[in-house]
Amino acid sequence: MSEITNPTARTRVVREPHRGTYDRETVYQILDEGLVCHVGFVSDGQPFVIPMNYGRSGDNLYLHGSAASRMLRCLDQGVPVCITVTLLDGLVFARSIFNHSMNYRSAVVLGRAVHIDDPAEKLEALRMISEHIVPGRWKDVRLPTETELKATSVLRLPIQEFSGKARKGPPVDDEKDYSLPTWAGVLPLTLQPGEPVNDSRLDPARAVPDYVKNYRRKK
Amino acid sequence: MSEITNPTARTRVVREPHRGTYDRETVYQILDEGLVCHVGFVSDGQPFVIPMNYGRSGDNLYLHGSAASRMLRCLDQGVPVCITVTLLDGLVFARSIFNHSMNYRSAVVLGRAVHIDDPAEKLEALRMISEHIVPGRWKDVRLPTETELKATSVLRLPIQEFSGKARKGPPVDDEKDYSLPTWAGVLPLTLQPGEPVNDSRLDPARAVPDYVKNYRRKK
Repeated sequence: MSEITNPTARTRVVREPHRGTYDRETVYQILDEGLVCHVGFVSDGQPFVIPMNYGRSGDNLYLHGSAASRMLRCLDQGVPVCITVTLLDGLVFARSIFNHSMNYRSAVVLGRAVHIDDPAEKLEALRMISEHIVPGRWKDVRLPTETELKATSVLRLPIQEFSGKARKGPPVDDEKDYSLPTWAGVLPLTLQPGEPVNDSRLDPARAVPDYVKNYRRKK
Repeated sequence: MSEITNPTARTRVVREPHRGTYDRETVYQILDEGLVCHVGFVSDGQPFVIPMNYGRSGDNLYLHGSAASRMLRCLDQGVPVCITVTLLDGLVFARSIFNHSMNYRSAVVLGRAVHIDDPAEKLEALRMISEHIVPGRWKDVRLPTETELKATSVLRLPIQEFSGKARKGPPVDDEKDYSLPTWAGVLPLTLQPGEPVNDSRLDPARAVPDYVKNYRRKK
């Protein structure tokens, strides 16, 4: 496939262009912090948007799901997809309703997914997805059997056509509105882990692993 | 438009059908807790998935954005859209990697958006979006001017064809795997508000309103 120069007409951020970025490192930070992506594809002219887990390794995104899934079988055909990851960082309160906003970081990747057939590559992609979600987990689990591996479809999407968009910082009001008595500022939002809950069939003497106890998304 | 009986072939949950729901109240709870939806639409055969704010009133979803936005102008044409809201509730750790999962609740709404022209209906829709994000805020803000209202596009999507999907609870392992020494359980995740940050140009004597101080998503 020929090299794509970002942004393309399809990924260029038109509204609030100063919020757009086409820098791989910045976009990869967003992808690496996210846990869920929203996958868009078209079937019979209807767009569908489905939440999925994913992983990234180098310039590729990996998706997995049941080999029997409608969506996976659709994506398998190499149809155009859009994968979007959004991180919500806060609510922005301005004096005017018009200038209210949210602080966020989002990444959009366009392309066509490729089905991974080779069992070794498939296993490695599953490891990437697992390590993306919980670094350190893979070494502790019972790995997939041949049957489980066959029941799983794994797709690779080369990250070629992409963009990021972000807003941060305080509200920006019209100059004349600053004198209004309305409270203005930012309410930060973060995805926070709670207390780990042991499975009821777990030996109560078993310790919660550090990668669960100290789980954080930000690197 | 004729009444749609849910699920349709397009919204029926095929994989893990016990996780699917077509009950309006359940799906509305998911929509009402979410802050960001992912809007899917097709342009020149390419699906796009864009994060947006939204609001719900009765059996309608409301979206808003700049009247100059490419996306809004595309949706304005009444093209098919898919709106997905996903709430991530936790990471599910099984003994086998194959049985790892996430606890989540998601809602998918398919349809065609209608442009709202009437200024009074538009203002009311904006109020719905504002009250969806921060109940109580609308009464404190400087409301939109005529010019600001003209610069804003507001769309209404009737909630007719929809489904929800959810997973909750502990991991489910294969019987033979329960004897493995691997830690298993759930790490809950929630979107947590932090400490409100006053805008630097705010009178420091001004108190943070209760709807910011006590902000919570769950009803």
